[in-house]
Amino acid sequence: MRETVFTVEATPIVFGPGAAEEAGYHLRRLGVRRALFVSDRHVHEVGITERVRAAVAELGIETEVFARAHVEPTEESVLEAIAAAREGGFDGFVGAGGGSSIDTAKMAALFATHGGELLDYVNRPIGEGKAPPGPLLPVVAVPTTAGTGSEATAVAVLDLAIGVKTGISHRYLRPRLGIVDPLLTLSLPPAVTASCGLDVVCHAVESYTARPFTSREKTSPDERPPYQGANPVSDIWCRKAIEAGGTYLRRAVADGSDLEARTEMMLAATLAGIGFGNAGVHIPHACSYPVASLRHTWMPSGYPDPCPFVPHGLAVAVTAPAAFRFTEAALPERHREAARLLGGEDLAETFAELMRDVEAPTSLRTLGYDESDVPALVEGALRQQRVLVSSPREAGAADLEQILRQSL
Amino acid sequence: MRETVFTVEATPIVFGPGAAEEAGYHLRRLGVRRALFVSDRHVHEVGITERVRAAVAELGIETEVFARAHVEPTEESVLEAIAAAREGGFDGFVGAGGGSSIDTAKMAALFATHGGELLDYVNRPIGEGKAPPGPLLPVVAVPTTAGTGSEATAVAVLDLAIGVKTGISHRYLRPRLGIVDPLLTLSLPPAVTASCGLDVVCHAVESYTARPFTSREKTSPDERPPYQGANPVSDIWCRKAIEAGGTYLRRAVADGSDLEARTEMMLAATLAGIGFGNAGVHIPHACSYPVASLRHTWMPSGYPDPCPFVPHGLAVAVTAPAAFRFTEAALPERHREAARLLGGEDLAETFAELMRDVEAPTSLRTLGYDESDVPALVEGALRQQRVLVSSPREAGAADLEQILRQSL
Repeated sequence: MRETVFTVEATPIVFGPGAAEEAGYHLRRLGVRRALFVSDRHVHEVGITERVRAAVAELGIETEVFARAHVEPTEESVLEAIAAAREGGFDGFVGAGGGSSIDTAKMAALFATHGGELLDYVNRPIGEGKAPPGPLLPVVAVPTTAGTGSEATAVAVLDLAIGVKTGISHRYLRPRLGIVDPLLTLSLPPAVTASCGLDVVCHAVESYTARPFTSREKTSPDERPPYQGANPVSDIWCRKAIEAGGTYLRRAVADGSDLEARTEMMLAATLAGIGFGNAGVHIPHACSYPVASLRHTWMPSGYPDPCPFVPHGLAVAVTAPAAFRFTEAALPERHREAARLLGGEDLAETFAELMRDVEAPTSLRTLGYDESDVPALVEGALRQQRVLVSSPREAGAADLEQILRQSL
Repeated sequence: MRETVFTVEATPIVFGPGAAEEAGYHLRRLGVRRALFVSDRHVHEVGITERVRAAVAELGIETEVFARAHVEPTEESVLEAIAAAREGGFDGFVGAGGGSSIDTAKMAALFATHGGELLDYVNRPIGEGKAPPGPLLPVVAVPTTAGTGSEATAVAVLDLAIGVKTGISHRYLRPRLGIVDPLLTLSLPPAVTASCGLDVVCHAVESYTARPFTSREKTSPDERPPYQGANPVSDIWCRKAIEAGGTYLRRAVADGSDLEARTEMMLAATLAGIGFGNAGVHIPHACSYPVASLRHTWMPSGYPDPCPFVPHGLAVAVTAPAAFRFTEAALPERHREAARLLGGEDLAETFAELMRDVEAPTSLRTLGYDESDVPALVEGALRQQRVLVSSPREAGAADLEQILRQSL
């Protein structure tokens, strides 16, 4: 028997220009008296963390800042955040930054609340995949990019020291509140805006084209996966986010001070986060993990520390045209509709056009890969079965090889 | 300075045919060991309450049934439910029925959790409008009509013995979970389906045409009203619900066993509930209170107890065409778009056509009113300032008189 039921869970959101100034009020409402701000060094240095922190401190809430969240959280940086969280006697956490800061805050809150070892909760088969025994101390997410949508998801991602990218997934990791303020994104450089925005569009398009929830075997609610597949409600969120990406991403990249474009992309990021958090992503995200971790030769522009790495959004987007070309046979009508919402007719081509227009690298070769890397990339993508199962068309090694070769 | 920030809060939802069978699992997950089922006599007699209760009891959760929720909750019925809730040692509540049962369950949970007198929490100026000191024991809403959307709202409505319809509004009254199962609506008679469905469409259209949140003066988050005005997220929900109403309500009325139509209307009811719960309704809902309470001569078909009353959906819909004709000058583009989503060109006319097609009474006269009632109806509508403030065009006594006369 096929599944007939889906669930909808969404973080409460406070949205709009100036929303970040309300952070103290909402923390107080959640009963927080002493909050740890988790941020990365850059967000801290440009003064965003301090702006939010000062507004919170004004209401008499004690605050401390941990500004060493790692962009793409490493095991070491997460353990350091957990230690800070456990030792400081905090009763609430604020993740202020990109997805990395928010994910680090989620993990800090988990271990400050329930104790235990990192691997207790890390997804199987690498960790034990335990469910947290109860809700966490409140986490409030204050994103500073229009990207990951981590404020809306129940997942935290990290790179383990053994060289595997994995995460912790449980509904209790969903932040208690997202405070989503487009003013915090005004200073993002064009290349960062582009990378984050392409991630948003991929979240929305992958979720919209994911295997529908009705294609799964019916399970008990206990066994229902967090990535349920496309459903009528995730479709609503995703359609809106795809449309916004097609209309506003070019504008936000071309003129960072365009508040309308920044606001629409910020809303799209949250909507896509809610959408993929309830539905799931597929091939481009599966490929993004090895693309981001195998070679570190690409020197991205717009990031504060000049060191070579592939930003998450670029790692996702680079295989998206070939992936959508591969998946379209399974759900042609949905792919056409996604293309139409994005402003074109053919999904792979329309997405590639968007990449070119925002000056994102459009090939794995540009990111430093060549033919000899394909087997390792395929192997890395195949490890991401948790996401690959959502692909509307089954993708085996040969299929992924073809997609990765086409993306060179 | 105008408001720039809006909030989005949505009850988590488990949706789909068969979802009600999962109620026990979700109660257990919420830590409930002993649950009071609040229902009305009819829902209980047709066996729906027992079906859900049995599935819950199977998982070892103790249950009791209070099946005396009053359709349009009276003070007496609410006090009786509160007494049952307080005395029974319950740690969770299930509202299984229409909006009345769910609202009664919300109030029962409030007083079982925090004690106090009814008027402590009733909206000002009639009650003291106190905020509950903390979250309530879990309430799970299991709607059996595609109507009020109470599973998604933070409001409970009741008729006080002094002859005033009012309510209790606070975010803590939002149920912890909505279990929304269209199978529970298959046996609803056509007239009930029509009334509930027209209520859904009015929730969505009124919210979509409500004063935008940006038209309010900026306030502190403490003072932000629960009915914030139309905003980009409520718009998404409402557009989808209007479209579903235009496409599926006629089908659900014509053939109650049409599962696709029942499912789409059930989803629309929840989406519209989330939408109006975050945005607000206006003139038709303000008028519905006196229309429902002034005269009791209309004998509705399809309801179990043959006694004269005006079902909520009919009381709302009957003034909607004249109200939309009045408000369209303020936001003509939105009214046209709502009409288009509903399947026509002119909103007042398209809505009136839908009423005729589902055989709803289209005039106050049919419901038993005449010219001599207009002053009392105007007075009653004017008392509903909490909703009237959301009207996109200010509606004074003369305007309401005109709308009510046109609705005769």
